Amino acid sequence: MPTMQTVRTMIGTHPAETGVDRALLARVVDLAVACSTACTVCADACLAEEQVADMRRCIRTDLDCADVCAATARVVARQTEYSADVTRAVVQACATACRTCAEECGSHTDEHCRVCAQACRDCLEACEELLAAIG
Amino acid sequence: MPTMQTVRTMIGTHPAETGVDRALLARVVDLAVACSTACTVCADACLAEEQVADMRRCIRTDLDCADVCAATARVVARQTEYSADVTRAVVQACATACRTCAEECGSHTDEHCRVCAQACRDCLEACEELLAAIG
Amino acid sequence: MPTMQTVRTMIGTHPAETGVDRALLARVVDLAVACSTACTVCADACLAEEQVADMRRCIRTDLDCADVCAATARVVARQTEYSADVTRAVVQACATACRTCAEECGSHTDEHCRVCAQACRDCLEACEELLAAIG
Amino acid sequence: MPTMQTVRTMIGTHPAETGVDRALLARVVDLAVACSTACTVCADACLAEEQVADMRRCIRTDLDCADVCAATARVVARQTEYSADVTRAVVQACATACRTCAEECGSHTDEHCRVCAQACRDCLEACEELLAAIG
Repeated sequence: MPTMQTVRTMIGTHPAETGVDRALLARVVDLAVACSTACTVCADACLAEEQVADMRRCIRTDLDCADVCAATARVVARQTEYSADVTRAVVQACATACRTCAEECGSHTDEHCRVCAQACRDCLEACEELLAAIG
Repeated sequence: MPTMQTVRTMIGTHPAETGVDRALLARVVDLAVACSTACTVCADACLAEEQVADMRRCIRTDLDCADVCAATARVVARQTEYSADVTRAVVQACATACRTCAEECGSHTDEHCRVCAQACRDCLEACEELLAAIG
Repeated sequence: MPTMQTVRTMIGTHPAETGVDRALLARVVDLAVACSTACTVCADACLAEEQVADMRRCIRTDLDCADVCAATARVVARQTEYSADVTRAVVQACATACRTCAEECGSHTDEHCRVCAQACRDCLEACEELLAAIG
Repeated sequence: MPTMQTVRTMIGTHPAETGVDRALLARVVDLAVACSTACTVCADACLAEEQVADMRRCIRTDLDCADVCAATARVVARQTEYSADVTRAVVQACATACRTCAEECGSHTDEHCRVCAQACRDCLEACEELLAAIG
């Protein structure tokens, strides 16, 4: 089975109910997990670049974004005893980390930065959609 | 050497500079790490309780708080190419997770919940102090 | 772009070289990330079940497997200054966590446990393939 | 209350029983959490060094060690439905990550590397003690 499809199925058949569209929750989880992994790879690829001294800010924003996206994916993946307050605060932090990282990675021409910036923008867009849904 | 003292030393001798008081950064890292661990133990202890069905909300808030505090500790521990925007957003999320978990754990009489609620309140207080310092 | 496909692209174009087949590394990362997320959702779904007291072992093995798979995905995703020793030890731990969780989830009939058990088996299989490749 | 002391208290009063000395479990959790945080700070301090190109291996081993120690602390902190197999495999991975990082950091003269190497050695020692106790 194609990996994250697994997760979409599970979120869709969860016994609890949050009042938030499950497809949207699954999309945020999926994109946050992908963004976290992309940022981990991008930080590591930046570290291998000859001009690593010029990649310090990119590595830093990648590492932050990886950590925040990973925590966000876990919080959003949980539907038992849902808290709109915690979800909103965490997804806002995730949006900020993704926006910052998308800007930084978007300013570099390396292939890994270009792909990572897109992963950040995709996650940011899903976060903003979820924030609008939570209100 | 007494464990987290290690970390305070390292944060204090870091080659980069954020403009934020290093002792305060170290205190947030220390308390976020302690809170994350306390929440992990509390969720696990709640799960072992005979009345586990009554502890669902507590386990959920513990797991969220553990994840958010862990990510926050990592972001705040980094001083290279510091971003006030990312730090503020993450520390705000941490404060919300800690406040929510302190309220939930504080409503239970189990020893692990009582100790965990205090760890959450301590971390929340440090987060609020850092937010005031960042502005 | 379909999420984790992003990551496969990035791992494939990384500037460093580990001597291990990149498609295999990408497969382990992909399946470990999917398994970690599946286990997070499964633990949360078990917690919402009416018979939560019977799901204690499943929740525990899910939480462990989620944490170990997340760390494994990060280690395997890094190709700069690759260490076969660290990779081998971490992937062995991941295989053990996945095997244990697949057995436990496989003994329950809930849909989320069934899907999670399959995610664990898929990740276990990829880990064993990587262990064979590392030697 | 002095932070990680919190956690030692909680592990000591946990309702479940693993058959392993609780003070030893608490010591591993404490040292793994401290090591994980030390490695996060060390990676970030290495990144700020003028000679960052010479610190690539150190940053990589720090990041791996931070991730593995964090996962290990969580697994060892759980006492409900304890699995000796999972604990052993994870603590073995942690010992390998700590040994590798202690060697790497120990070869640098920077203050952060020196302190980090000691945190790795302390965690390694506790892991080996726990492995001997589990058998």
